[in-house]
Amino acid sequence: MKSRAAVAFGPGKPLDIVEIDVAPPRKGEVLVKITHTGVCHTDAFTLSGDDPEGLFPCVLGHEGAGVVVEVGEGVTSVMAGDHVIPLYTAECGECLFCRSGKTNLCVAVRATQGKGVMPDGTSRFSYNGQPIYHYMGCSTFSEYTVVAEVSLAKVNPAASHEQICLLGCGVTTGIGAVHNTAKVQPGDSVAVFGLGGIGLAVIQGARQAKAGRIFAVDTNPSKFPLAELFGATDCVNPKDHEEPIQQVIVEMTGWGVDHSFECIGNVSVMRAALECAHRGWGQSIIIGVAGAGQEISTRPFQLVTGRSWKGTAFGGVKGRSQLPGMVEDAMRGDIQLAPFVTHTLPLDRINEAFDLMHDGKSIRTVINY
Amino acid sequence: MKSRAAVAFGPGKPLDIVEIDVAPPRKGEVLVKITHTGVCHTDAFTLSGDDPEGLFPCVLGHEGAGVVVEVGEGVTSVMAGDHVIPLYTAECGECLFCRSGKTNLCVAVRATQGKGVMPDGTSRFSYNGQPIYHYMGCSTFSEYTVVAEVSLAKVNPAASHEQICLLGCGVTTGIGAVHNTAKVQPGDSVAVFGLGGIGLAVIQGARQAKAGRIFAVDTNPSKFPLAELFGATDCVNPKDHEEPIQQVIVEMTGWGVDHSFECIGNVSVMRAALECAHRGWGQSIIIGVAGAGQEISTRPFQLVTGRSWKGTAFGGVKGRSQLPGMVEDAMRGDIQLAPFVTHTLPLDRINEAFDLMHDGKSIRTVINY
Repeated sequence: MKSRAAVAFGPGKPLDIVEIDVAPPRKGEVLVKITHTGVCHTDAFTLSGDDPEGLFPCVLGHEGAGVVVEVGEGVTSVMAGDHVIPLYTAECGECLFCRSGKTNLCVAVRATQGKGVMPDGTSRFSYNGQPIYHYMGCSTFSEYTVVAEVSLAKVNPAASHEQICLLGCGVTTGIGAVHNTAKVQPGDSVAVFGLGGIGLAVIQGARQAKAGRIFAVDTNPSKFPLAELFGATDCVNPKDHEEPIQQVIVEMTGWGVDHSFECIGNVSVMRAALECAHRGWGQSIIIGVAGAGQEISTRPFQLVTGRSWKGTAFGGVKGRSQLPGMVEDAMRGDIQLAPFVTHTLPLDRINEAFDLMHDGKSIRTVINY
Repeated sequence: MKSRAAVAFGPGKPLDIVEIDVAPPRKGEVLVKITHTGVCHTDAFTLSGDDPEGLFPCVLGHEGAGVVVEVGEGVTSVMAGDHVIPLYTAECGECLFCRSGKTNLCVAVRATQGKGVMPDGTSRFSYNGQPIYHYMGCSTFSEYTVVAEVSLAKVNPAASHEQICLLGCGVTTGIGAVHNTAKVQPGDSVAVFGLGGIGLAVIQGARQAKAGRIFAVDTNPSKFPLAELFGATDCVNPKDHEEPIQQVIVEMTGWGVDHSFECIGNVSVMRAALECAHRGWGQSIIIGVAGAGQEISTRPFQLVTGRSWKGTAFGGVKGRSQLPGMVEDAMRGDIQLAPFVTHTLPLDRINEAFDLMHDGKSIRTVINY
């Protein structure tokens, strides 16, 4: 079938809005009509060409919501008409990782997903007869996309797709990191570095967890009002201080914060986040994705004196098990999604969404088809 | 009073066996007659001059056992005749850290201990009228030493001091790291880097915890028989492999080990230990003390894909609360100490203990007074 799509034909170029061909879903696959998709920094990172695993041409996009159109052979967990969120972190329920109960990092489709193809090693997308790569198992920048069954969360059809598409990546990552990875407890102190969509979601998760002080850290103070709306108690601009930001936060707290979150992808900030964690038990969670080849460092003394350095992907959330409940939370207002959607645009203006993000003007632009 | 002591008069020089003056214990202090002391790598590190916090002249030694001779004003928890192990990690029970229930890193005497003096800011040691610094709050290389009350664990007087002195540092650190920091569970896989006293204690702790595979890693294969005696299932010499050791262990296990422990103090090995931890949930515990200014590094991807990087000091053990029980464990044979004591020497031959250690010939040399 034909599908409108924003295709990344090469690194560093704007997306082209073209009509591509989408092949029918094969065994264990599902054809989904995407209704809305967010535009995330990870899409921009891959588009930039800095992502060593980036493949071109491809259909980017991994933060979407849609409706099942057709299922392939053997698919039993969803049917045509179901409302779904595609998952870049699958949940097969059967692999070593799913069965461990310790992680959401399912490996069912990991190898082929990283190669931009479906689990059988081929692509469902083509343009002028040439194959186009999939992206993160989702490719939500095509109106019609094919996704593995294990990569689909079935959600309440009454939910607003314009909002719940954000649960496909950023908001879930931030909130999940608080609950699943850090396990923030009532009264704990939290520092959040970077107030984009993920950072703001961390703040929201921290308030859900009844954290005490919540430090919101960004060099762009225009982000502070929204951070405060979501629950930040202290907004800190590193540019306002001569000392390193970790020292500022340690001084403001006595011994550092119980939990810190890096939501940027900057290895220097990752170090600062670790070093402002509380002596004895503070932990720092890396959420941001650093550039290729970049490394984190610190003195081992920081760990020997009780700090832990961790990371999280998709907030530790098992998508098929947990995302339906998070959609319900959003419908009840226990997760606020509307404030994240600062802009909406039609597909043919998707490149403007990247501009808004690069200029720091948007939290999330949601594309509607 | 007069006391025989091995004094470090300057960095990089052998210790001098001299008779020093020891002043009586002041308020909150205790005079202890040391009967036995181990010689640990940390003593050698400070003696070498590489320790940026090293102060000279000083009385080194922090792994001892002894008997209380006299208590200062206000001391209630021990009395003359009690058998004790001096603690370089105090436990006051009252500070923020002790009350947290999350860490053993008491701060009661931390600041002055780091400056080589007693909590009132002065030293009890002198030689020819000149003050000599204390070391790690213990200074067990003097037959008579003065220790803060909060830095003394009272233990069963029937225990062998020649053996339980090792619970003052290395053995407790290794076993404690397994139980308190890593919380190894039955069936878990473990990799131990460095088969000195601490590494061997980790192996022993892992066997207590009913770990499954226990990898013992060292470039000196003469350490392997003792590692196997304590419970290692696989001994690996990195020199036998062309690939980096982390890759070797990942290949041997499929996805890495559940827990790894760095027991050397080498930042490259710390990286290897992290990178051989299991995707999704593996954790690596830094125990070794790195040289001044050295830093650990890795790609943040290692953490984002589920590994945790932690550290431990004194194995997370709260000395006054937990060490008496560990002494009982040793007396029952649940902790084996005898195999660690490969050499015993009188105080006046203490410099030979350093030579044996540097040459990799000893696990522990115990000095008896």
